[in-house]
Amino acid sequence: MNSPLPDPAVTLPGEADILIHNALVLTLEPGAAPLADGFVAIKGSKITAVGSSSCPGPPCKSLPCARQTLNARGGLVLPGLVNTHTHAAMVWFRGLADDLPLHQWLNDFMFPLEAGWLDGDKVYWGTLLAAAELIRGGVTTVADSYFYETEARRALAEAGLRTVAAQGVVDFPAPGVPDPRDNLRVAAAFVDTGRDFSPDLITSTIFCHSLYTCGPETLKQGKALTRERHLPFFLHLAETRQEVEELRQKTGLGPAAYLDGLEVLDELTVAAHGVWLTPEDQDLLAWRQVKVSHCPESNLKLASGVAPVPGLLARGVPVGLGTDGAASNNNLDLFGEMSLAARLHKVWQQDPTILPAAQAVALATREGARVLGLEERTGTLTPGKDADLIIMDLDQAHLTPLFDPYSHLAYAARAADVRHAMVAGRWLLQDQQLATLKWPDIAGRIRTGSRDLAAFSRNLGRS
Amino acid sequence: MNSPLPDPAVTLPGEADILIHNALVLTLEPGAAPLADGFVAIKGSKITAVGSSSCPGPPCKSLPCARQTLNARGGLVLPGLVNTHTHAAMVWFRGLADDLPLHQWLNDFMFPLEAGWLDGDKVYWGTLLAAAELIRGGVTTVADSYFYETEARRALAEAGLRTVAAQGVVDFPAPGVPDPRDNLRVAAAFVDTGRDFSPDLITSTIFCHSLYTCGPETLKQGKALTRERHLPFFLHLAETRQEVEELRQKTGLGPAAYLDGLEVLDELTVAAHGVWLTPEDQDLLAWRQVKVSHCPESNLKLASGVAPVPGLLARGVPVGLGTDGAASNNNLDLFGEMSLAARLHKVWQQDPTILPAAQAVALATREGARVLGLEERTGTLTPGKDADLIIMDLDQAHLTPLFDPYSHLAYAARAADVRHAMVAGRWLLQDQQLATLKWPDIAGRIRTGSRDLAAFSRNLGRS
Repeated sequence: MNSPLPDPAVTLPGEADILIHNALVLTLEPGAAPLADGFVAIKGSKITAVGSSSCPGPPCKSLPCARQTLNARGGLVLPGLVNTHTHAAMVWFRGLADDLPLHQWLNDFMFPLEAGWLDGDKVYWGTLLAAAELIRGGVTTVADSYFYETEARRALAEAGLRTVAAQGVVDFPAPGVPDPRDNLRVAAAFVDTGRDFSPDLITSTIFCHSLYTCGPETLKQGKALTRERHLPFFLHLAETRQEVEELRQKTGLGPAAYLDGLEVLDELTVAAHGVWLTPEDQDLLAWRQVKVSHCPESNLKLASGVAPVPGLLARGVPVGLGTDGAASNNNLDLFGEMSLAARLHKVWQQDPTILPAAQAVALATREGARVLGLEERTGTLTPGKDADLIIMDLDQAHLTPLFDPYSHLAYAARAADVRHAMVAGRWLLQDQQLATLKWPDIAGRIRTGSRDLAAFSRNLGRS
Repeated sequence: MNSPLPDPAVTLPGEADILIHNALVLTLEPGAAPLADGFVAIKGSKITAVGSSSCPGPPCKSLPCARQTLNARGGLVLPGLVNTHTHAAMVWFRGLADDLPLHQWLNDFMFPLEAGWLDGDKVYWGTLLAAAELIRGGVTTVADSYFYETEARRALAEAGLRTVAAQGVVDFPAPGVPDPRDNLRVAAAFVDTGRDFSPDLITSTIFCHSLYTCGPETLKQGKALTRERHLPFFLHLAETRQEVEELRQKTGLGPAAYLDGLEVLDELTVAAHGVWLTPEDQDLLAWRQVKVSHCPESNLKLASGVAPVPGLLARGVPVGLGTDGAASNNNLDLFGEMSLAARLHKVWQQDPTILPAAQAVALATREGARVLGLEERTGTLTPGKDADLIIMDLDQAHLTPLFDPYSHLAYAARAADVRHAMVAGRWLLQDQQLATLKWPDIAGRIRTGSRDLAAFSRNLGRS
């Protein structure tokens, strides 16, 4: 695990910019043990060294030298969390329409709000709000799938988050794209303007909403557009029993077979939810190396169902965790998803050994990065990868005593325990303060807008 | 809702000691609307007035006058949460043995640890640690059921928590009671020494562990002891399928019918878990006015099952929320239980309208108080009741925007959002700092003890 360390007595060209020390370090590399008295050295955007040191702090022969040192004071350092599926700007609709049947929630509230109230500026500010919540909660990589995605991407770039931004495509008038014939053209333009952003941090791609909102031609063309650019392709898959039954009535096929016939399934396809996947569906997804984003809090709140995650994992399907949007969750806290995933499948399978703590933590980090095709860059603390990490405060009642840091992360820790967060060597959170975003500006803009939204939504749901 | 207000121009004998104002107040009284620009006035241990005021703060004609005012700065004020079932001192075993089958977890770890490692001093310090976590998480009333309960009660009294402390009874050698023939005598003595504590804050009673650890005579005598003192009687009921099947094989009866035959079921019996209750069991519990403590996080983590909470509620059975012990949870965070309860039954029943947000919040407050027989004293913000309340910070990304405070509490808020907590007019938490407990002392004692515990437990589970 230890990399060769420079002699701290001399300032070397390889000197680190930042050294985090006095930490319990979880690299999340497969099979790696926790590093007591651990350190992480960072130069530029990259991790240069990870290891253990028995001395109390620099200057110390066994620690790399660095321009800036951060004493983690016994805190826990791990890779930043990866949120593999959200609709960030939907934080606007948090708590606006809860506890409703899915079709009523969607048709009486979400679609009218998106059609009549949302605009690009609101997506920008909503995404900034989401970014603030994500960063405070230790998420350093986010896959966002929504409309007006140009504005969402601008907000996520300002926030400094590692981002996979996907422009939404549907076969009906969409927010910002009144004529559905323009949807794929707009999405392609979104992808191509992505070149203006750092490719190291921002991936721009396409999200075909679902099999019930996109016809076969749209799905094929959307996939073709992303395949030729070697980009991940997002879609909602088998979220509800109803959509799967309707597909089967219409086509005689299950969702995986249907998509396979359209040549949409490959290792660059990311399917969100995957609740109603039969063993045959799961076999086919595994065969085609499709990735799955598991969103348990949303699936429970909307009563969609429980995704067959143990079955997918047993078949070797890469599974990450996602929060879905805040309209159906109602938070963007990946610790909640970790805790729920680790518990839910135990009771669903009547087996308390399923999805143990360390595996749940891996889904939220390393496996999430794999789902997004970013495993070379993030998801573990490995020299050569980008420095995407969080530091958690362990000196708290609910994290005391400490026997197993994975257990604490999966079953006891919370978003509020994250003290510092870094993406590609840049601090996004320092001592729980946002470093790249101005919270008062965001809060002010959202509060003003939410009064307007409350007025707009007063007459919804009365049909 | 508004009580008659004293004229603030004169110092009256009825002047409040503390006035909390500039708050969004949820009284949790049935059917009461949230109070914008709300206030709560407190004199001694009691709430004297709750209402709305449109002025920015005192001095103000429409607000009661008080010796001390606290500007809640737009925060949310609600009754303190009620944790209806825990084993506080088991925080020692947090994360020590996860992801195991129940019988292995119990027989290879918990029972040997309790028999060979635990003592009264450790229960005292463990319970102080639990109290710190409970207070930080907004719990103001806790029902604790464990061994060495004299020590647990001492710790909870020091912490200032409203407490129902129940001494554990089993038919085999128990921690602190090597001869099981002494168990009921020790429990009775525990109850009777409870007179040394303020009856307004501390109730001392008995917890017969379960139907598989207590024979019929023990259950009958334990219940008789508490019935004649008009005290709540606690037991674990139908937590696992296995225990229910074994009971049925042995007696031919379901758990409710079996207990009813022993005359154990009445309005002073609190059954924890209640996972494997048939409709007939539920009917009988409802008929006998038994109360149920629902512990969903523990039930999922141990793969015990999902309690039929909607069925119990439909029958009018009072249901509260409990965390269970940290060895099976692994936290004492009632916000997590609220969020999980609100979600879990939706997916279990395939109905997203089940257990809506406001009902989940009621279970964690008003209904919890009812379960413990404390509804005259706590659980709602009502003049004449004790001042048990919490103030939550709403100025946070994950709680923005705000359309429905119940939705935020059930689906987005977290223990860490609690800024202040008060029991019977006494601050236990101020600006997130513990007011009655010394965290460094507790943390130091637990960390030292946990090294000893790690050494002791190294050879467990190898049988």
